[in-house]
Amino acid sequence: MASTRIREAKERDCGDILRMIRELAEYEKLSHQVKISEEALRADGFGESPSFHCLVAEVIPAPGELQGPLVVGFGLYYFIYSTWKGRNIYLEDIYVMPQYRGQGIGTKIIKKVAEVALHKGCSQLRLAVLDWNKKAMDLYKSLDAQDLTELEGWHSFRFEEAAMRKLAGW
Amino acid sequence: MASTRIREAKERDCGDILRMIRELAEYEKLSHQVKISEEALRADGFGESPSFHCLVAEVIPAPGELQGPLVVGFGLYYFIYSTWKGRNIYLEDIYVMPQYRGQGIGTKIIKKVAEVALHKGCSQLRLAVLDWNKKAMDLYKSLDAQDLTELEGWHSFRFEEAAMRKLAGW
Repeated sequence: MASTRIREAKERDCGDILRMIRELAEYEKLSHQVKISEEALRADGFGESPSFHCLVAEVIPAPGELQGPLVVGFGLYYFIYSTWKGRNIYLEDIYVMPQYRGQGIGTKIIKKVAEVALHKGCSQLRLAVLDWNKKAMDLYKSLDAQDLTELEGWHSFRFEEAAMRKLAGW
Repeated sequence: MASTRIREAKERDCGDILRMIRELAEYEKLSHQVKISEEALRADGFGESPSFHCLVAEVIPAPGELQGPLVVGFGLYYFIYSTWKGRNIYLEDIYVMPQYRGQGIGTKIIKKVAEVALHKGCSQLRLAVLDWNKKAMDLYKSLDAQDLTELEGWHSFRFEEAAMRKLAGW
């Protein structure tokens, strides 16, 4: 039977990562907001001082199967800074292709990110989830994550470029 | 009359910044969560590859006044990565001391962060605000920020260290 492993993404995975970024955005019904390109992902994640780090979930075919390893999920994260706790990790995206769900691959990705966080001396791992994505919410809660919007009332705000230009008088 | 200016924080401002981090957490009724030290802020923000950047608002005394410049607010930010838009800025903390509010100092800080973001080619500036902090919410909305929790349903989740250790089997 095929097995799954989680590994660090390489530059050559950027095509697969972009495909899955688009699939995730489509699932979130927000795909009109995706403007990133494969070239940008290559430059931003795999240069001298990368803006993000990425893990991919890869299905290794059983011996004798013709097809090569298949990238079926990813977790993209970066380091953030809490003025209460210091350096932490933010998991910007986590995704597993629909036909590979229910096998614990998402949990494996989160587990690996938690290991990285602990290795780097981080005491928190943050992420955001859409309120109608009950499956994801339930998964995170089952792993002891706290819903800070529910518990403490945190709302996410965003200034888009037009608002920033107006603010800056550009 | 005294005037206010926004400038980049120096290492010697860390005492003031820590004081205001604590004041802000107290205002947010979450001060039990503050574990950071002045030494950590110095090391994390002012070394070779800083984990954050910080602006301070300084009141310059009128000529003839005896007291020196007074740090009365701050904005602490870092770079994040959107898989939809690329490199962006997250404003982790923004604070103005109560007796200096209502003079537009908070707006000046946000404006400066927006300028940095545009200079660096970022297309978004994100931040989080507590739902009962209506004054802050109204300010951000008046500056054309969008409440993504309200509009799209985003909830903030956090794994604390204990949850990460359990996940990682540490």
